[in-house]
Amino acid sequence: MPETPGRKEVKIAKPAMNKNDEIAAENHRRIEACGMFAVNLISSPGSGKTTLLEALAKILQKDLAVIEGDVQTRRDAERVEKAGSIACQIETGGSCHLDAQRVSKALDEIKLESLSCKLLIIENVGNLVCPSSYNLGEHMKAALISLPEGDDKVLKYPSIFRRIKVLLITKIDLQPQMEFDPERAIKECESLNQGFDTFKLSAKTGEGVEEFCKYLLAKQSMLTA
Amino acid sequence: MPETPGRKEVKIAKPAMNKNDEIAAENHRRIEACGMFAVNLISSPGSGKTTLLEALAKILQKDLAVIEGDVQTRRDAERVEKAGSIACQIETGGSCHLDAQRVSKALDEIKLESLSCKLLIIENVGNLVCPSSYNLGEHMKAALISLPEGDDKVLKYPSIFRRIKVLLITKIDLQPQMEFDPERAIKECESLNQGFDTFKLSAKTGEGVEEFCKYLLAKQSMLTA
Repeated sequence: MPETPGRKEVKIAKPAMNKNDEIAAENHRRIEACGMFAVNLISSPGSGKTTLLEALAKILQKDLAVIEGDVQTRRDAERVEKAGSIACQIETGGSCHLDAQRVSKALDEIKLESLSCKLLIIENVGNLVCPSSYNLGEHMKAALISLPEGDDKVLKYPSIFRRIKVLLITKIDLQPQMEFDPERAIKECESLNQGFDTFKLSAKTGEGVEEFCKYLLAKQSMLTA
Repeated sequence: MPETPGRKEVKIAKPAMNKNDEIAAENHRRIEACGMFAVNLISSPGSGKTTLLEALAKILQKDLAVIEGDVQTRRDAERVEKAGSIACQIETGGSCHLDAQRVSKALDEIKLESLSCKLLIIENVGNLVCPSSYNLGEHMKAALISLPEGDDKVLKYPSIFRRIKVLLITKIDLQPQMEFDPERAIKECESLNQGFDTFKLSAKTGEGVEEFCKYLLAKQSMLTA
């Protein structure tokens, strides 16, 4: 990002960034060698990442492995395991994003090479800002916006929406109660990013969930084709 | 935070942190000299910070000045001005939190010493993690959790809930549609923090808004008593 006069940016030292990318590349190689398609799932706290993962786990069962990133608690991994998939928790202990090093350790812990899953989903820490700068080794970043958050969030947090391949508009069952215009969010995202697909989902009613499952499985089958 | 074996923490260099605290102390001195009570408002994106500020602005009018922090766009300041209060926008240009230096510049820009407001509210960047570590010169931190985010967020993001003086449970009008137990959130917050007050609010229906206004004005009147 260019320095603006009078504005002081927190700079991430270049060698550290390159080290993250190096480890991310190694994670990516390991994931691909297992024939898995990996997604880095990013949103605010409470947009419904874990609830969506529970819904996906109920359908995908052992075809899905999940790495859960949280500042603290093992709550999310327990929810995903209960729904039927494989899950591993990373507690970041204060850090506001996952990095490739932490994910590398989680891949060891989850015994990646012994799994026969098709999909690996990494749920990042709930944060729309910092996680966008760290590659973890994924094939794609997907971001959620839930209806209660408001349809003005894309341009307020452009760094993530510029990098995603999938936009997930969640809690769509709340549409009657919410003044949220999905077309506004999509249009603002298109102003930043020319290559993303959109799904409107409700983990509660199931709307869009199977469709999103099929989409991810199709991406995985293209890897091994 | 103590280093846990096998866990790598992002360390903030001590001199930088001290510089922030020094500038925060100077901001605090300036704000107090003007007889204002200052609040640092922190939550996830979409918890309703700006909507609450609009509701407060409609009641408080020129008794309220607002500093709006956002990664990008001037949207929030415009909303608060339209509702009748004084507002100034800080675009952080990528940074995930406000710091005392940025707020100091905003105090100049808003011409703090020429204002006759009673309250100054600083709306931080939508993020439950990073803003908690930076004092801005405020009298208190207040955190919002909205019902759609879920009642499990306090222990997942403990650093902010440990530091607040006010817990604002927002979008309370959605209670019939949400499985959110306010008592769970409050109890978890009490496990981290012995000195906070709670308000249940709906900026949409107005529930709790006047009460919160009165509370803040009482805090301000204690400053000058």
